[in-house]
Amino acid sequence: MIIVLKPTCSKEQQIKFSNMLKDNYDVKVNVWEGVHSTVLGLLGDTTQIDIEYIDAQDVVESVKRVQEPYKKANRKFHPENTVIDIGNGVKIGDGSLQIMAGPCSVESEEQIIEVAKAVKKSGATILRGGAFKPRTSPYAFQGLKSEGLDLLKIARKETGLPIVTEIMRASHIDMFENVDIIQVGARNMQNFELLKELGKTNKPILLKRGLSATIEEWLMSAEYIMAEGNNKVILCERGIRTYENFTRNTLDISAIPIVKKLSHLPVVVDPSHASGKSWLVEPLAIAAVAAGADGLIIEVHNDPPHALCDGAQSLTPQQFDTVANKVFSLKNALK
Amino acid sequence: MIIVLKPTCSKEQQIKFSNMLKDNYDVKVNVWEGVHSTVLGLLGDTTQIDIEYIDAQDVVESVKRVQEPYKKANRKFHPENTVIDIGNGVKIGDGSLQIMAGPCSVESEEQIIEVAKAVKKSGATILRGGAFKPRTSPYAFQGLKSEGLDLLKIARKETGLPIVTEIMRASHIDMFENVDIIQVGARNMQNFELLKELGKTNKPILLKRGLSATIEEWLMSAEYIMAEGNNKVILCERGIRTYENFTRNTLDISAIPIVKKLSHLPVVVDPSHASGKSWLVEPLAIAAVAAGADGLIIEVHNDPPHALCDGAQSLTPQQFDTVANKVFSLKNALK
Amino acid sequence: MIIVLKPTCSKEQQIKFSNMLKDNYDVKVNVWEGVHSTVLGLLGDTTQIDIEYIDAQDVVESVKRVQEPYKKANRKFHPENTVIDIGNGVKIGDGSLQIMAGPCSVESEEQIIEVAKAVKKSGATILRGGAFKPRTSPYAFQGLKSEGLDLLKIARKETGLPIVTEIMRASHIDMFENVDIIQVGARNMQNFELLKELGKTNKPILLKRGLSATIEEWLMSAEYIMAEGNNKVILCERGIRTYENFTRNTLDISAIPIVKKLSHLPVVVDPSHASGKSWLVEPLAIAAVAAGADGLIIEVHNDPPHALCDGAQSLTPQQFDTVANKVFSLKNALK
Amino acid sequence: MIIVLKPTCSKEQQIKFSNMLKDNYDVKVNVWEGVHSTVLGLLGDTTQIDIEYIDAQDVVESVKRVQEPYKKANRKFHPENTVIDIGNGVKIGDGSLQIMAGPCSVESEEQIIEVAKAVKKSGATILRGGAFKPRTSPYAFQGLKSEGLDLLKIARKETGLPIVTEIMRASHIDMFENVDIIQVGARNMQNFELLKELGKTNKPILLKRGLSATIEEWLMSAEYIMAEGNNKVILCERGIRTYENFTRNTLDISAIPIVKKLSHLPVVVDPSHASGKSWLVEPLAIAAVAAGADGLIIEVHNDPPHALCDGAQSLTPQQFDTVANKVFSLKNALK
Repeated sequence: MIIVLKPTCSKEQQIKFSNMLKDNYDVKVNVWEGVHSTVLGLLGDTTQIDIEYIDAQDVVESVKRVQEPYKKANRKFHPENTVIDIGNGVKIGDGSLQIMAGPCSVESEEQIIEVAKAVKKSGATILRGGAFKPRTSPYAFQGLKSEGLDLLKIARKETGLPIVTEIMRASHIDMFENVDIIQVGARNMQNFELLKELGKTNKPILLKRGLSATIEEWLMSAEYIMAEGNNKVILCERGIRTYENFTRNTLDISAIPIVKKLSHLPVVVDPSHASGKSWLVEPLAIAAVAAGADGLIIEVHNDPPHALCDGAQSLTPQQFDTVANKVFSLKNALK
Repeated sequence: MIIVLKPTCSKEQQIKFSNMLKDNYDVKVNVWEGVHSTVLGLLGDTTQIDIEYIDAQDVVESVKRVQEPYKKANRKFHPENTVIDIGNGVKIGDGSLQIMAGPCSVESEEQIIEVAKAVKKSGATILRGGAFKPRTSPYAFQGLKSEGLDLLKIARKETGLPIVTEIMRASHIDMFENVDIIQVGARNMQNFELLKELGKTNKPILLKRGLSATIEEWLMSAEYIMAEGNNKVILCERGIRTYENFTRNTLDISAIPIVKKLSHLPVVVDPSHASGKSWLVEPLAIAAVAAGADGLIIEVHNDPPHALCDGAQSLTPQQFDTVANKVFSLKNALK
Repeated sequence: MIIVLKPTCSKEQQIKFSNMLKDNYDVKVNVWEGVHSTVLGLLGDTTQIDIEYIDAQDVVESVKRVQEPYKKANRKFHPENTVIDIGNGVKIGDGSLQIMAGPCSVESEEQIIEVAKAVKKSGATILRGGAFKPRTSPYAFQGLKSEGLDLLKIARKETGLPIVTEIMRASHIDMFENVDIIQVGARNMQNFELLKELGKTNKPILLKRGLSATIEEWLMSAEYIMAEGNNKVILCERGIRTYENFTRNTLDISAIPIVKKLSHLPVVVDPSHASGKSWLVEPLAIAAVAAGADGLIIEVHNDPPHALCDGAQSLTPQQFDTVANKVFSLKNALK
Repeated sequence: MIIVLKPTCSKEQQIKFSNMLKDNYDVKVNVWEGVHSTVLGLLGDTTQIDIEYIDAQDVVESVKRVQEPYKKANRKFHPENTVIDIGNGVKIGDGSLQIMAGPCSVESEEQIIEVAKAVKKSGATILRGGAFKPRTSPYAFQGLKSEGLDLLKIARKETGLPIVTEIMRASHIDMFENVDIIQVGARNMQNFELLKELGKTNKPILLKRGLSATIEEWLMSAEYIMAEGNNKVILCERGIRTYENFTRNTLDISAIPIVKKLSHLPVVVDPSHASGKSWLVEPLAIAAVAAGADGLIIEVHNDPPHALCDGAQSLTPQQFDTVANKVFSLKNALK
């Protein structure tokens, strides 16, 4: 951390401030006195220092962080890729491509089993399906809730596919015990109380990027989970909010190589929510794999026009089969 | 709701689709057949219809909502301003200007009482102070928690000022029983489970706008609370995320007159978080009152450089006194 | 400018790099050697240094600018407010409030004279009107062009109001010789060739902020004009592009106090373009004056529904009269 | 175009308004009378109608465009891909992948020839190089200007590579007569006067997307060129401005399939400017080709740390060779 002091800062103030820093944090303070201003350089573990706190000091002109504020998610301190074992032979982050597919919402036993069988046949290795649904409107369908979880488990039994589904409150964690991957939705990415509780479990967590979260904030949310002891975090890029409104969100394709460089955690991409349009799923899925994603999460519905949510972005099983074929071929070609 | 059908939609499909609409919703369907395309007009209560569901139908080219998707928060159905009684003679939304002031975090009994007395003297009518703090980093100070709540109550007893403080999880609601206004932070604006639980209480709720929430999404979150029976929602504009990074957020001043037009709920402005800089609090507070805000929420700390969070945007009691004087004079001049 | 060198940078590389800096720029280089990294501090006129050039050097980890990259527009080097004399007794930047008002497009002699007389009566001191119109569509009305300029001059003769109108290409400068203030539109804010040519004139320039320009980029565009010798730059905030699409743009009210702090140039606000809705002009105009604007530029049309462009945001002369009364009262109250 | 009339609109007003529409535009007006409101449907060529003009009418509640506002750039009216012949056997838009490569700025004969030879060897078919440089700061290097153009022509003669370079003002068009592709930079995307003049030439135009231009605005700028008779427009996605500031811009990868669907014009991608970081060029270039781009434009410098501009995002010839190999292999694999 580099701190530029104000030109008006006296020698005495500077010493007092330096001492305060050394007393409160596990850092060394180096002083570089220029002609017009003095710069302090802090060495040591600066992740514990609140940059805003420093910025608020009377004597401080500006501050610059040199070290990233996250530790456990940081590739610098963990150079190897994290590989997460989902069970049933499925691993994410080991260089393979894993596809999570299924309906936005679980609607019936028949529906979820039909979709699960179809996506498995096309190469998906994980079944997705919403039981608890975060909806902008209180009047919209909110999911089958615990019944939806039961139906997902039935579909898992039928097909052997591990299941991923979204949690919306910490008090539901017990209910999610038999879920293979617990998803944190974009709107809850900074629901820190939920993150902390999930950090106390031993479950793989699919952490979606917030609607307008920076990459650093996203990694800090992963850090919340990891700081409690759970290192099984899978990051999910699902599009960010921008001024462009042709698509529901703007897929930030650069986030894939950036996250892979900054962190050792696996990253998957959700082309369905990123675009909100079924005809864009194929090109975005292909681009995501080309950019290095460890996996994809794709909405597939046996009857998109009658889907109870997000029908506009769902693929039919036939369309999904085409996309899956293309991305697996591409993955092979890139090897 | 206006639905443009695809040019390829047959007469038979159109009739089938219209019947489906009439069967499922409490609407009348009017058909207007043009030369090249057919348009359906839905009359009735369309707030229950999921626009994405309609958009996903095979026969649909595009959809346009004419009516707003919120009802209870909508001024059309409730033309009078909602006035919320906070207790102790303080009302928000009745044309008066109410200022909530206090530290970002409650730090000690001495601190909160000192600040409370000072801001009361300057005209503040509500004491703010964080007990549970949402922080981007898991390593940053997370607040005094229940002890902070106790200290706020002591300060209320000393000064008579009602208190407002932030809740971070539904399971804490019982703990907030003696709080006068419960605040929902920007990062939890779409924590729908929390909103629903708050809707079951009888407490005034200060609902901050999400970091990149549209005005419609913000009103839909108010609707979540109101749909459960609690109409005491105070909206709080606190800046939105944009590309401009000179300020931490960009104060959306237009949101004030827009919300006043669309909704009957009171709206207050947080110039401290909107700018992240103490020297911008005064001009933004003045502008907010000029634009019609029902109140302000301002961070005041007895010793900003040693504040445990957000010091850079906190005012000293002296600075706050100046700002309060200016906004009250302005409020009088605008009458 | 502070340059953090990479941990891998050798002593020899560091000396070579420092010498290069001293040889090429008018700066002193101070070296501060920490335990793990070395920091260089550059003192002197760093505005000539391209920060990206430094950032691209092999040995550089990161760079931080301490000094602003603009000089002539910088308040640090010119503490007094710039006051611009428009002629006919009108001055901008002297603490007074000046209102520029008139139609989006000049349409006829009758129209412009009628509007000019009306707005003058309500207190406007400058007449605005578009002769050359930048339109998103090549098929939309592009303005009366030179005929429009002639009509503006007739209206000036009739009313004594100085005129402001937009230029769209450098080769038109001669045609604008008798215009009192030349406007550069948001879409041309970084048309550097146009800025340079305007810098060679002696005319006051109204420089609108670009659709998504940062405050720093906006001041750098002012610097382009000033670097050629023309210091008469009036900055105009007209809303920025954000994700919120209820309004056409989002008025960045904070830009007013920020620009006043960073620069000595006057700043005016355009509430008409910032909102795109006539009913928002009044609250935004009032807020802008409260926040410290030196002036306003407002669209007024004698018959908004029949305006050839931007009718939705134009006020009638009666509506303008109300707004003008309110902002002048407010200005008095703020004194 | 669908126009919803206000509930207060009388039958008489409705007839008057409909007649006005029929008299002024080449459209038929269909009336659909609902119980509470009336909707007008306009059939015919609505591209000539200014949607804001309609929106400003007293009797209008809201308007919705059904047809796109661009005609010549619209795939609906020109289903075949436009293939642009650059000369020397190079065609863009025919399903092949063309790479434009070269330095940000032309700096010397030696430099440009060295880079040109290197990129040609790696498979680039067009040489890029800036002679006139738009720079945020007036104090930064502005390019070698006409001398730069001469050096590009020498490099073309040496290597046979057609050249692409940026124009900054209409009065330079004659100087660009021997340039193979004229580039319009992002900051000039809505410099309509420049676009109109380029529309009168017969040159291929590389039209970069504006910093915060919507896809529709970008296509409208192409329409400006085409409306004057020049159909040779190549669209170039170069990243958009968002809140995320890890990268200089955010590559909007979705723009590729969207533009290919909406328009028949070819689209190329600039991964260098989109990211501003050389290590991101490879993954973004690969993703762009995977998403369907017709070409790439990549910055290559023989000595990036000493490049006079944008060094941080330039590749060395060796790095470029690796990227070119990968994208050509991918292109083959996708066939």
